[in-house]
Amino acid sequence: MRTPAASGWRLHPRGSSSSKLTRRIISNVKITLLCAFVTLLVLRGTVGVNRRLVYIAGSPDNRADPATATGSARPVEDVERILREIRADSDDDPDAGPDNDEAPTSTSSYAATGEHFDHGAAWTTTNYRLQPRVTRWNAKRRRWLHQNPGFPSRDARGGPRVLLVTASPQGPCGSPDGDRFLLRATKNRLDYCRLHGVEMVHTTARLEDPELRSAGDGDGWAKLALLRRLMLAHPEVEWLWWLDAGALVTDMGFELPLARYEGAHLVVRGDSYQLFQRRAWDAVSTASFLLRNCQWSLDLLDAWAVMAPRGRARHDAGALLTATLAGRPAGEADDQSALVHLLVTEKERWMDRVYLENQYYLHGVWTALVGKYEKAMEKHHPGYGDDRWPFVTNFAGCNPCDDGKNRSDEYPLDRCASSMERAFNFADNQVLRLYGFRHESLASAEVRRIANRSTDPLEAKEEALAFLKKPSEPDLWSNDVRKNRKRKGKGDLDFVLARILRRVGWRSKC
Amino acid sequence: MRTPAASGWRLHPRGSSSSKLTRRIISNVKITLLCAFVTLLVLRGTVGVNRRLVYIAGSPDNRADPATATGSARPVEDVERILREIRADSDDDPDAGPDNDEAPTSTSSYAATGEHFDHGAAWTTTNYRLQPRVTRWNAKRRRWLHQNPGFPSRDARGGPRVLLVTASPQGPCGSPDGDRFLLRATKNRLDYCRLHGVEMVHTTARLEDPELRSAGDGDGWAKLALLRRLMLAHPEVEWLWWLDAGALVTDMGFELPLARYEGAHLVVRGDSYQLFQRRAWDAVSTASFLLRNCQWSLDLLDAWAVMAPRGRARHDAGALLTATLAGRPAGEADDQSALVHLLVTEKERWMDRVYLENQYYLHGVWTALVGKYEKAMEKHHPGYGDDRWPFVTNFAGCNPCDDGKNRSDEYPLDRCASSMERAFNFADNQVLRLYGFRHESLASAEVRRIANRSTDPLEAKEEALAFLKKPSEPDLWSNDVRKNRKRKGKGDLDFVLARILRRVGWRSKC
Repeated sequence: MRTPAASGWRLHPRGSSSSKLTRRIISNVKITLLCAFVTLLVLRGTVGVNRRLVYIAGSPDNRADPATATGSARPVEDVERILREIRADSDDDPDAGPDNDEAPTSTSSYAATGEHFDHGAAWTTTNYRLQPRVTRWNAKRRRWLHQNPGFPSRDARGGPRVLLVTASPQGPCGSPDGDRFLLRATKNRLDYCRLHGVEMVHTTARLEDPELRSAGDGDGWAKLALLRRLMLAHPEVEWLWWLDAGALVTDMGFELPLARYEGAHLVVRGDSYQLFQRRAWDAVSTASFLLRNCQWSLDLLDAWAVMAPRGRARHDAGALLTATLAGRPAGEADDQSALVHLLVTEKERWMDRVYLENQYYLHGVWTALVGKYEKAMEKHHPGYGDDRWPFVTNFAGCNPCDDGKNRSDEYPLDRCASSMERAFNFADNQVLRLYGFRHESLASAEVRRIANRSTDPLEAKEEALAFLKKPSEPDLWSNDVRKNRKRKGKGDLDFVLARILRRVGWRSKC
Repeated sequence: MRTPAASGWRLHPRGSSSSKLTRRIISNVKITLLCAFVTLLVLRGTVGVNRRLVYIAGSPDNRADPATATGSARPVEDVERILREIRADSDDDPDAGPDNDEAPTSTSSYAATGEHFDHGAAWTTTNYRLQPRVTRWNAKRRRWLHQNPGFPSRDARGGPRVLLVTASPQGPCGSPDGDRFLLRATKNRLDYCRLHGVEMVHTTARLEDPELRSAGDGDGWAKLALLRRLMLAHPEVEWLWWLDAGALVTDMGFELPLARYEGAHLVVRGDSYQLFQRRAWDAVSTASFLLRNCQWSLDLLDAWAVMAPRGRARHDAGALLTATLAGRPAGEADDQSALVHLLVTEKERWMDRVYLENQYYLHGVWTALVGKYEKAMEKHHPGYGDDRWPFVTNFAGCNPCDDGKNRSDEYPLDRCASSMERAFNFADNQVLRLYGFRHESLASAEVRRIANRSTDPLEAKEEALAFLKKPSEPDLWSNDVRKNRKRKGKGDLDFVLARILRRVGWRSKC
């Protein structure tokens, strides 16, 4: 005789088995759907359908066809159109899209431009490429990271690893105080890097090809080879941040808004009106920019470097740039003009991975900023990075390590030196506050104590850290900072996609 | 009617309840026992019973009573004995032990020594103390770390956080190439810090009391105030590593063996025979040493600084040191002699937390090392840190930033400069290998490519990292490195105790 209880008890395993089967089927269907979804996502990238939105901080109007540009760009329109038409024949398949992991089979050829600017002679550097050649870098990097858990691509606070890269000449400086400025600039960067968990490389050796060297101490073109080499030697690094040796970080509280750059591979200070409407040679700045460690960036460096080889190639390219870019002085091709030219002429190929940043001074020119420090100290806090408290102050034109031959007459040495002293002390004050000191004035290297001798050092630390934060900001120093940031619209979707991709082992963001 | 099955099914919960009760009781007993054990451990530290073994790398014979010392120490025996007898009256309760979290109520008084070396005048700095005063630092630090999880006291690889501290003069160097040397030395340290996840502070401002300043550019005494200030401002840091501005890291592969220093608070290069038998003024080196962030270290800095105040105090203390330490040249008190004196005269109070390291060059003098680099490159790998491949090469006596007035005649400027160039390039080669380059020779700043252009960059990275490791070492770069290290005897017990303490929230090792 069966009691209901016993019957129920015996029946249970049968019911459980059937329910398990159902659950398994549902689970299988789920996995199949997920796989299909991931396949779709991968295809989306490969066939170039539904490309990501262009990450340009300016208005949509700025994305008008460059051929319809107005103002100072008009005189060069015809030249540009012809160039584009000729070069279209040798360009890569545009459908390959920026997500393509393979390097293009040939870089864009400038040979055809020779007839306009070189009176018939062919360009000798058509196929110039940075070394060593690397293809399928994203996959290789991903695999290496997987095999080397001792090199995590995230820092201790969970953010992507950033490597600040700077270079200074291998020999002593030509100017008497040049090395001292470089020492202080290095100390300045070191402070920022320690406060924000950024790693730092400072090279003094010349690692570039001899073709990329410049006559003076300029490291303009050499940075392309250096960045490429560091990218390949440090697969654990997600972002490389190039900073010219003559630039100082003047906002010690500002945190690079890396979450905003999801989907972007190059972040430059710039303005889309200046770039596409005016085609100004200084529409973007290459003294301070961020570059993601991925195949796209390696390809960009290759395309960017075609004007680099010194001698006739660089000289002739300079003539092209002066003729086509607004406001550019005559002279051999420089890396900044070359990037502007590349982004304008190959907008479709590159711009959907370029973020033009103008919400803070990723790069700021000293002449416009050093006079504002007192006002900043009086009215604001560090942490904004914008006009209220500029993030980077670059002493462009000062060439502090130079023997003076390349120094612009516009910026006499003593004006440069006193401005640098101000910028250094302005930044140093933000660091010294943690130890209870500050400079006697922005013009003085001497410091004086500001903290009471009996102050509790931990309270002083809290106060100094609070000072470095924007007043309205959520806790910048907490691990949860990313949770506090709200994403809206497209950002939300991107975030969810990125999370799913990461879950299925898609670690790199390239 | 009950079926056995149903009965069994109903009985089961009762059996389970009784078993749960038993388990709970066992669990409670376990917790009680654990608590009792922890209480015992805490008491052990507080009442000073069963002190940890003295961490001295030398033989047990070296720990003989200094009063029985032989050799050159004999002539100063009587002076020392009298000093000890007089000072014993004013010393703190020795039972308080080094684990005591409270600062002593008075520092050791040197007033009584005045009659021997100052002809009756009292020492004015008897109660000199570094500022700000802090007591119960271990508890405060522990609480702060608990409240600020955004500042973990462990680095990304799980090791204790280390802060490399160095200082250079606030003004330009007196020698023509001084600033350039400092720049390269900073780059050298930066490389080591990046490779090993060490943080770095470089100060150029004078944060010390005016009493601690020196006539020249020496940062001898100033380092005590700086270390104290950094310790209090960076509770998240476990170890501070002081490195003189004139020292270079010459083994980029060497990992500080921090696991070996469990229980020690000060690690100095030194030799117990030289310290206790000979009482040599250079028995330990203060150009490169490790200091743990804890109350013991704050107390040590206070006791160490009593001879620091400049003027008569420092001058008279110099006379005492010259009279009592073997081989010391005449001159005002320096920080190294003062530490030797402190460790010899207050051995019982300090030495059980001092680790005399002589298994690798935590500090090495350049004259003995720069000639060996070629042999090292020919026969060995980096990673040993000892005679095979020295870890730190200090250019003692060169004073590279000095105007030459304090430079020893023994070391002419050109010999210093060429040796520094060799040391810098020797170290730089180990870093450049990662990027496929090396210096043309140790005397040349020029570099040449060593890697084949077609080499896979990731294979090159593996090879360069493997080169930095000692051949027989377990994987230095893996997170599991601590698991691979075997501990023996006392070490095993210490490790287990430390783990249990950490489990119950005992985070700091002080």
